Amino acid sequence: VSPFRLAVINPNTDDSDTAAMATAVADALPSGAEVEAYTAERGARSIESAVDEAFAIAEVVKVFQAHPDHDGYLIGCFSDPAVDALRELTTAPVVGIGEAAYAAAAMVAKRFAVITTLARSRPEIEDALRRCGAQGRCVAVLSLGIPVAEQGSEFPETTDAIIALGEHAVNHLGAEAIALGCGGMSDVERTVAAAVGVPATNGVVVGALMTHALWAAGLRTSKQGAYSAPEAIPYQGMPAVRDGLDARTEI
Amino acid sequence: VSPFRLAVINPNTDDSDTAAMATAVADALPSGAEVEAYTAERGARSIESAVDEAFAIAEVVKVFQAHPDHDGYLIGCFSDPAVDALRELTTAPVVGIGEAAYAAAAMVAKRFAVITTLARSRPEIEDALRRCGAQGRCVAVLSLGIPVAEQGSEFPETTDAIIALGEHAVNHLGAEAIALGCGGMSDVERTVAAAVGVPATNGVVVGALMTHALWAAGLRTSKQGAYSAPEAIPYQGMPAVRDGLDARTEI
Amino acid sequence: VSPFRLAVINPNTDDSDTAAMATAVADALPSGAEVEAYTAERGARSIESAVDEAFAIAEVVKVFQAHPDHDGYLIGCFSDPAVDALRELTTAPVVGIGEAAYAAAAMVAKRFAVITTLARSRPEIEDALRRCGAQGRCVAVLSLGIPVAEQGSEFPETTDAIIALGEHAVNHLGAEAIALGCGGMSDVERTVAAAVGVPATNGVVVGALMTHALWAAGLRTSKQGAYSAPEAIPYQGMPAVRDGLDARTEI
Amino acid sequence: VSPFRLAVINPNTDDSDTAAMATAVADALPSGAEVEAYTAERGARSIESAVDEAFAIAEVVKVFQAHPDHDGYLIGCFSDPAVDALRELTTAPVVGIGEAAYAAAAMVAKRFAVITTLARSRPEIEDALRRCGAQGRCVAVLSLGIPVAEQGSEFPETTDAIIALGEHAVNHLGAEAIALGCGGMSDVERTVAAAVGVPATNGVVVGALMTHALWAAGLRTSKQGAYSAPEAIPYQGMPAVRDGLDARTEI
Amino acid sequence: VSPFRLAVINPNTDDSDTAAMATAVADALPSGAEVEAYTAERGARSIESAVDEAFAIAEVVKVFQAHPDHDGYLIGCFSDPAVDALRELTTAPVVGIGEAAYAAAAMVAKRFAVITTLARSRPEIEDALRRCGAQGRCVAVLSLGIPVAEQGSEFPETTDAIIALGEHAVNHLGAEAIALGCGGMSDVERTVAAAVGVPATNGVVVGALMTHALWAAGLRTSKQGAYSAPEAIPYQGMPAVRDGLDARTEI
Amino acid sequence: VSPFRLAVINPNTDDSDTAAMATAVADALPSGAEVEAYTAERGARSIESAVDEAFAIAEVVKVFQAHPDHDGYLIGCFSDPAVDALRELTTAPVVGIGEAAYAAAAMVAKRFAVITTLARSRPEIEDALRRCGAQGRCVAVLSLGIPVAEQGSEFPETTDAIIALGEHAVNHLGAEAIALGCGGMSDVERTVAAAVGVPATNGVVVGALMTHALWAAGLRTSKQGAYSAPEAIPYQGMPAVRDGLDARTEI
Repeated sequence: VSPFRLAVINPNTDDSDTAAMATAVADALPSGAEVEAYTAERGARSIESAVDEAFAIAEVVKVFQAHPDHDGYLIGCFSDPAVDALRELTTAPVVGIGEAAYAAAAMVAKRFAVITTLARSRPEIEDALRRCGAQGRCVAVLSLGIPVAEQGSEFPETTDAIIALGEHAVNHLGAEAIALGCGGMSDVERTVAAAVGVPATNGVVVGALMTHALWAAGLRTSKQGAYSAPEAIPYQGMPAVRDGLDARTEI
Repeated sequence: VSPFRLAVINPNTDDSDTAAMATAVADALPSGAEVEAYTAERGARSIESAVDEAFAIAEVVKVFQAHPDHDGYLIGCFSDPAVDALRELTTAPVVGIGEAAYAAAAMVAKRFAVITTLARSRPEIEDALRRCGAQGRCVAVLSLGIPVAEQGSEFPETTDAIIALGEHAVNHLGAEAIALGCGGMSDVERTVAAAVGVPATNGVVVGALMTHALWAAGLRTSKQGAYSAPEAIPYQGMPAVRDGLDARTEI
Repeated sequence: VSPFRLAVINPNTDDSDTAAMATAVADALPSGAEVEAYTAERGARSIESAVDEAFAIAEVVKVFQAHPDHDGYLIGCFSDPAVDALRELTTAPVVGIGEAAYAAAAMVAKRFAVITTLARSRPEIEDALRRCGAQGRCVAVLSLGIPVAEQGSEFPETTDAIIALGEHAVNHLGAEAIALGCGGMSDVERTVAAAVGVPATNGVVVGALMTHALWAAGLRTSKQGAYSAPEAIPYQGMPAVRDGLDARTEI
Repeated sequence: VSPFRLAVINPNTDDSDTAAMATAVADALPSGAEVEAYTAERGARSIESAVDEAFAIAEVVKVFQAHPDHDGYLIGCFSDPAVDALRELTTAPVVGIGEAAYAAAAMVAKRFAVITTLARSRPEIEDALRRCGAQGRCVAVLSLGIPVAEQGSEFPETTDAIIALGEHAVNHLGAEAIALGCGGMSDVERTVAAAVGVPATNGVVVGALMTHALWAAGLRTSKQGAYSAPEAIPYQGMPAVRDGLDARTEI
Repeated sequence: VSPFRLAVINPNTDDSDTAAMATAVADALPSGAEVEAYTAERGARSIESAVDEAFAIAEVVKVFQAHPDHDGYLIGCFSDPAVDALRELTTAPVVGIGEAAYAAAAMVAKRFAVITTLARSRPEIEDALRRCGAQGRCVAVLSLGIPVAEQGSEFPETTDAIIALGEHAVNHLGAEAIALGCGGMSDVERTVAAAVGVPATNGVVVGALMTHALWAAGLRTSKQGAYSAPEAIPYQGMPAVRDGLDARTEI
Repeated sequence: VSPFRLAVINPNTDDSDTAAMATAVADALPSGAEVEAYTAERGARSIESAVDEAFAIAEVVKVFQAHPDHDGYLIGCFSDPAVDALRELTTAPVVGIGEAAYAAAAMVAKRFAVITTLARSRPEIEDALRRCGAQGRCVAVLSLGIPVAEQGSEFPETTDAIIALGEHAVNHLGAEAIALGCGGMSDVERTVAAAVGVPATNGVVVGALMTHALWAAGLRTSKQGAYSAPEAIPYQGMPAVRDGLDARTEI
């Protein structure tokens, strides 16, 4: 049997984020699995606003179009941009790190909190929790007031702030696990978990493993209904998306 | 007092859709109001899939960036692409025709049905109903199996199919009004309403009027929280969105 | 085309509230529109309890019965008394200020707070938010502890209290807009919005404009299902409601 | 210990309905309990529309005001008119037959169907199910197309129709019990249950017994928050409701 | 007519809890009713964890199997263990004290708080509120940090803590009634209610009365669907549950 | 690094089911992983009713107590018996096949249907969907009318019935994937998926892989709140569960 070949797509344009995710994922996947990580070519260095995301969604689709032959796709931004679009374009499993983090947290704890970057993201995350059916498991969405650009182990003060907020969530709000709401928080998961004493995940590593799980279980993205291949619509000013899709969208 | 100046943005690249919406809206707005209608420069001629929408979202933002000085914005696609993004970029009211149709239908009927184009759209529309809080008012999302490109009064067989489905929804499913789930259905609203005997709306005309209502009531898009102006994030390969925004984002 | 003729019905018996709403609405409607405002003949000077509302509901119906020929009806009490009943009696659009405030707030902000008069109203408002599908958009229902009778610009201490509570909601609870939960708060909307820095509405002005929007879009209250004309039931001790209805309930 | 003294309030003006409910309740209450049944003085002979209910709500309050000294109150109309208002006016338990039927059905079956009179009532009943938290237990709200005035054992064809609809609900929709959505269906409960083979209740008898259960358990309607005594508001054209209340509203 | 014969089943192995519940129930049931109370033979002295409950569920079934001939069954643990199982085994009404407390609290108050023993129980109680449809009525689930074993009138410091938490819930969280989340709190209901000034119930007494109410109304547990008699499945290492059931499961 | 050691616990007493699950799981796990499969010692040969499950829950706990040292636990019954209890007893990830099937289906399709054995299970499965937050993704729960004992590839007529029901769900109800609601359906997953043309899973294989995913991502069951180790409660007639737990419940 051929090994699992995962693509990690970073919707922002910061190569160092991409590299960090690739490393974390490669360390965790079963031996033999292969990981390629891709960075959006254009757009925001970090995604904080709906405008940043508006451009990122199109870029993620373009990355896929350039690399359509992987066995699974992980989208490395917590708001799961373009997950639905990619699912239309392939039978390979496609997973967003946000939905992966919620699914994983709900399997190791009955209640979790989300810790995100800026306060402006809270309503969007609450909406995503509802869309994923996880709102009943989440006790609070808390924001650090620290942007994406200052996340990761190279910013120890951010990690301290995450730990303080996590302890508050556990001690006062009933959190039993922490979902870390930013792709850039991969390399502090274990530090936070150890300090706060509860599981912590931003969905990158566990999302890659869940993509593998779907693939290894023989599950492929449905081509009925919402995720059927895009219609053959004429496009103006850019190539029509439907070209050359058919082979990849047979389940 | 200066008159209301509305922008209608058509997320697809079909100029005839844009013109039809502009005409319908101009006829209905209070006298003195001015309407400009804009068409996406690139992308799908009609939006049927999440991939089509992924590209359209970015195009709607670009249209706004080129025309940032209107008093209100109406986004003329039933899935309300880029509504959140545009709300970050302006204090002017921004309304999507989908949310407008749901709000209007819920004020003239206790239960409504949505009639959409292709079956693949049903789950997305159900999700939008939940996001808008209208799911408890909607008895069914029904699909015609006829694409966006064959909607409008120049396709009388489509209108017949809408009427037949509408009668089914009223007579057997408890619908008391019809939300027509496609921007291209503006010019059959009254035909459908008259034939089925219940109110029918696709949100274009009433959405333009609701945008006016918000504006005339002095309501402006909040600049606190989710809709605050985008962060000053570096962009790669394209202009950063934040440039020159500040004047427009003072409430 | 004949102009829009709106009726504003004040469910309480305080003529000064009626006059204030009429003035606010007349200033905001498109030129040419006509406004008549009516006050309940009997019942509470201000509506604070379910008992007060029980009597007000019947009075609102009686006001309608005396003035059945308007193009639209706005019910000027935040709990939207008799909205369903009036919708049965006419094809003209009928809007309550509570539902209008929620719909408007949800179009200019992703999250809002409601500020109401007495604490006893909080559960009822929470129930109304659920009925309107707006509960996911509302971060909190907060009460001033100041009754309806002491609302409006002639009570500057009340306005100060609203502003303080609004700032608390924005700074600590995630509110991005304020729904002012009392018909008597019309003339402080702009003061509160300016002081707190977010949109604020009690639904009177925007509700009148939304009623106009429905009318101008050609939407009429459905006569199928829940809002069909009342059945021809014998009444005892009062006129049967069905008399003379038929002409008005043809859609 | 003094015996339980229950008031049954019939919100419509049909004395024969009142008598039927009184008989059914008296047969079922524990020995020693006393039942008085009251009929609304004015309004619809049967309540089918929101307009009928608008007047009935005020009448139910007036009946209470004339008879404020019972140990418990049962409101004998399936839409539970004026339940909240009466709870403000007394510490005695107040129960509506609709909420009682839902609570009882949910304790003897995991899923139930509601069978109501006319199709126009379906949306209102669905809303009531949500308000009571019972929507997840209800598989369908079905309508007979037969009005309130033709319910009860003296209309055997109605009973046949109920049984046919009940069998449909059990055999095809997953119903395990039947809630009979009309106060006039008390005397066919057992016939329907026997014929369909599942529990059936319209809430009259079990609602009276639940009112007794609350009273016998020492539970009294809360006077904190929503159900605190009405505020001392001036009334015009009618007596203020607050007069003489205080003694009855001490918990 | 023969009197009502109720079984109270205590899922824990503490006979003194059983005796306290039996006494409280016997005092409240209508005269002539008979109460037998049974204690689980094996398992935890008090039920605090899901593991404790896992064993208790099986024990409750065994108690029923030994005493299958009562007219109604009350399960005296707030998490309602084995309610669904017992409903399969009998047509007699079966009620859990948790669901009874929620139903009763929702009839005497619009909002209530739950006060439970240890913090670990909060998520389970929140889940039970959702399952019962009562989550919209509950403002908070609060924990004492005092285990089941130290509940009841013989622990006055626990009662003081309940009162303090209840006052907090009423004064700051909007509670209008208190659900006491433990079977061992029966004998402090009235003390708490008097001190806090709102209704308080742990569901034991009112649950027994509700079981009686169902029975006296002629309602029997459905034998269609979820609660039909267990299938005739072979059992290993223990008697098959189906033996001898048929007579009792005819409705 | 030591390999992953998974325990599969079959809550029923049919060894052939256990063997089938063990084989399916062993084939799919990454190389090097070890699988042990255990069968409940006592109870129903197949679990169809709440009574069957009541006994199975306790048996699953006993199996765990005898084998507490695995790296992950998969509970092989679709109703996920004892998942919460086992999570209290270990830091190893514990996954039920029902929740795994829902999570997986929701990642490869926007809408799925559940196909279960007997009609009596439908309400329980609907409740589980709500508890897992997956109800918005499920279009229908359909029953075969064929018991657990006749599931699996050795009953080709059952497989035909599943395929027919699956085609109905896809063609008429909007299903895009199938959740097979019984542990005994593992070996027909691929046959059903191929015949119906959509992904199909009963959660056994993908659940084992998800358990591995959690473990490989370093996630361990939380020991805060709901899943903290059981309290040190005295037990009667059986060993107290807390004995010797502490080492295993350090996170």
